[in-house]
Amino acid sequence: MNGPPDGAVVSIHRHRVAFFETDAMGIVHHSNYVRHLELARIHWLDEHDQPYRIYAEQGLHYATIHMEIDYHRSTGFDDTIEIVTWLDWVRGASMHIEYELVCDDACVATAATTHAMVNREGHVRRIPRDRAENLKRLALRPGPKIL
Amino acid sequence: MNGPPDGAVVSIHRHRVAFFETDAMGIVHHSNYVRHLELARIHWLDEHDQPYRIYAEQGLHYATIHMEIDYHRSTGFDDTIEIVTWLDWVRGASMHIEYELVCDDACVATAATTHAMVNREGHVRRIPRDRAENLKRLALRPGPKIL
Amino acid sequence: MNGPPDGAVVSIHRHRVAFFETDAMGIVHHSNYVRHLELARIHWLDEHDQPYRIYAEQGLHYATIHMEIDYHRSTGFDDTIEIVTWLDWVRGASMHIEYELVCDDACVATAATTHAMVNREGHVRRIPRDRAENLKRLALRPGPKIL
Amino acid sequence: MNGPPDGAVVSIHRHRVAFFETDAMGIVHHSNYVRHLELARIHWLDEHDQPYRIYAEQGLHYATIHMEIDYHRSTGFDDTIEIVTWLDWVRGASMHIEYELVCDDACVATAATTHAMVNREGHVRRIPRDRAENLKRLALRPGPKIL
Repeated sequence: MNGPPDGAVVSIHRHRVAFFETDAMGIVHHSNYVRHLELARIHWLDEHDQPYRIYAEQGLHYATIHMEIDYHRSTGFDDTIEIVTWLDWVRGASMHIEYELVCDDACVATAATTHAMVNREGHVRRIPRDRAENLKRLALRPGPKIL
Repeated sequence: MNGPPDGAVVSIHRHRVAFFETDAMGIVHHSNYVRHLELARIHWLDEHDQPYRIYAEQGLHYATIHMEIDYHRSTGFDDTIEIVTWLDWVRGASMHIEYELVCDDACVATAATTHAMVNREGHVRRIPRDRAENLKRLALRPGPKIL
Repeated sequence: MNGPPDGAVVSIHRHRVAFFETDAMGIVHHSNYVRHLELARIHWLDEHDQPYRIYAEQGLHYATIHMEIDYHRSTGFDDTIEIVTWLDWVRGASMHIEYELVCDDACVATAATTHAMVNREGHVRRIPRDRAENLKRLALRPGPKIL
Repeated sequence: MNGPPDGAVVSIHRHRVAFFETDAMGIVHHSNYVRHLELARIHWLDEHDQPYRIYAEQGLHYATIHMEIDYHRSTGFDDTIEIVTWLDWVRGASMHIEYELVCDDACVATAATTHAMVNREGHVRRIPRDRAENLKRLALRPGPKIL
């Protein structure tokens, strides 16, 4: 377990595994972790930015444009998964978030998602200025240059 | 297995059970059957009324206001469930649909759902006249009187 | 909002609606409430009986054999739903649970589920004696006679 | 839209988007594509290897150990997504599958998953010899060397 990088501004979301998340292998079906990531980044925004509800009320969404997950161990019914979340970088209209999922002191999975801000019609929009300034202060590193 | 009542106008929707629908009991989690019912009634509308997409494009939805399911047997990964669906009754703004779920010639579950037509704001609306007339011809029996 | 009947032994499970629970009508998809009921009855067992995990470790499950839900109002992203849960009756191998779902002091839905105790092979088994005695003390009324 | 590489042995799985797959942005929630990938690779095994059911009956599973998805466009209710699937490489106990998701002749997403063969206890097992030989013939390229 590596933990988040030095300097990362983290939140920790605790998720207790529901029975309906398990599959016939007796473990949490891998598709559910994608939903845990959503819960975790909304938790991060709650703690460090603003409730996602406020974005949504303004018709703005951080649409997921990339997702990757490495699964290291399985989890089962009633396990508590801690999802450690941090903002890796932010740019004018996108951001990149990283996650480490931990259960019983072992790393269950690591993951990353990239998001583009879009409006109700699905068109890309710049992140509102005050939010962008706040997020830039919290990001671990500058956003990559667009070539 | 009783099958649909005499006179019922049915459709049969075949659903092959996905692995992600199973749970740690090794069977299909009971919550998934609710989704099978949705697939089945959209299939029924396709065959006997109009694609649900057309309702949705007009901002109309058959919101579910009541649902009941009796579970008789379990199903498992890769089973094919046949959902036999018919319209029990229709009224000005609501309808009642019944279902029998069958697998390997055995009745897996029976179910019923009641729906109210609502607009985008969630307000109850009358079913469009041409649709209501069509549905009334297909219903098994007259809608119950409202007391 | 009627609230639970006099004498009911309740637990209250708070569920914050996730974005992935919403649908294109902008509200919580009706199938998700079935999952909320599962979370709520596991919460009730935690508080009043024993963790469901202990049943599962013994290869015992309360399989759902009947479910009914009446939907009164919609809920949306980030709403907090309180699920008030109580045990209506218990018999040798089955029990009946009732639920009231509340959001912003309004009744969102009422529901009931019936469960049969089964083993790993899905065969009906009597509820273990100590659990049955405990549950009978907590039930609102005696189980119906089997005809 | 690039399409699969030359020499890829593909299957095409057609998935009609259900209403319950949409979210409050009015589009398919990104977590559902993970489930489409599972449907698509089971379809690929059906056509080119053996039904996944046979693996499962032997207590063998291709556990997902890595997943990545790039989302290019959204899809909505009642769209038909074609998932083009091919086996990129296979090794003694793992394989790597790639996917292109297409809707209305446009590329919706590209994805890749890596799987390790595990037994009922979750321990890594070699792919059965006859299956491994078959899969090696179908793979686009040799598996990467393990360092």
